[in-house]
Amino acid sequence: MFLERWSPRAMNGEPLTEGQLQQVFEAARWAPSSGNSQPWRFLYAVQGTPGFEGLFGLLADGNKVWCRRAGALVLVLATTRDARGNALPTSAFDTGAAWMALALQARALGLVAHGMAGFDAPRARAELQVPEEAQVLCMVALGHPGDPAQLPEKLRDREVPNDRQAVETFIAQGAFPEGWKR
Amino acid sequence: MFLERWSPRAMNGEPLTEGQLQQVFEAARWAPSSGNSQPWRFLYAVQGTPGFEGLFGLLADGNKVWCRRAGALVLVLATTRDARGNALPTSAFDTGAAWMALALQARALGLVAHGMAGFDAPRARAELQVPEEAQVLCMVALGHPGDPAQLPEKLRDREVPNDRQAVETFIAQGAFPEGWKR
Repeated sequence: MFLERWSPRAMNGEPLTEGQLQQVFEAARWAPSSGNSQPWRFLYAVQGTPGFEGLFGLLADGNKVWCRRAGALVLVLATTRDARGNALPTSAFDTGAAWMALALQARALGLVAHGMAGFDAPRARAELQVPEEAQVLCMVALGHPGDPAQLPEKLRDREVPNDRQAVETFIAQGAFPEGWKR
Repeated sequence: MFLERWSPRAMNGEPLTEGQLQQVFEAARWAPSSGNSQPWRFLYAVQGTPGFEGLFGLLADGNKVWCRRAGALVLVLATTRDARGNALPTSAFDTGAAWMALALQARALGLVAHGMAGFDAPRARAELQVPEEAQVLCMVALGHPGDPAQLPEKLRDREVPNDRQAVETFIAQGAFPEGWKR
């Protein structure tokens, strides 16, 4: 399951259905969070709607190339205060858990999910009226798998799962090792 | 899979095996992260080892009650700079994704995983020599399922999955809704 989840760019342009969106958000819903605070928030838009153009316009040019054929775009945010105004210091961490659930559920439905930092977060905040108390974390392209041959050559060559560092580089017993990348 | 993952407190005290630990960390390893930066770091200790007492000693009293029977404790951290010193603004978010993978893999192995904010993070930083560039995010108890009857009555009554807000409270199209909790 974890190895089958990766971040393809080839999508076929077909809009996600309401049912598919509900299923991926339902998976995110059941993520754990500190004090069950559920700080994740998702602003989404389906391919072919005016909202899609709004989110699409926030993307870096390099991501526009392939996100044109996404089935939906999702802006991932987190509230940093609960309803009583108390700080939620782990809201980004908790929202990362919800994002992972969403990505795994997308994969289970035969969809692809690709998270991106390459978008204009300050402009997203301004255009979507995101209050100061919320964090803008990530843009996600969701889509139906497409034909990699339709990607520009440079991206086509990257249309494979990327690798990871060895487990030994990020787990340890005892104190924080001197040798870890910081 | 997502509904079967919750955060029990009843554990039987049996140490996790090296194989179980490798499998949960291997799942975390394949999480997505911005630029494949892989900022997650885990300091862990197995039940019955001196390291376990070190992590256990950081817990809030309310968590010590039931973590005494954990099979391992894991402190979850994130580096906030890559090897070249560049900032990784989504390191907590990305590490949340890795934590979700770890929790789901634990469940798939028949283990329980319970994340906690209830521990002394500043003391963890001092005792484990965590550099300023790393964030201390979460403590996780991993364990073999135990008998809820051994929990104190107050915790026994809470030994069921908790609920979630409706999906409609955290997804929207268009701008950030006025009515969302902030």
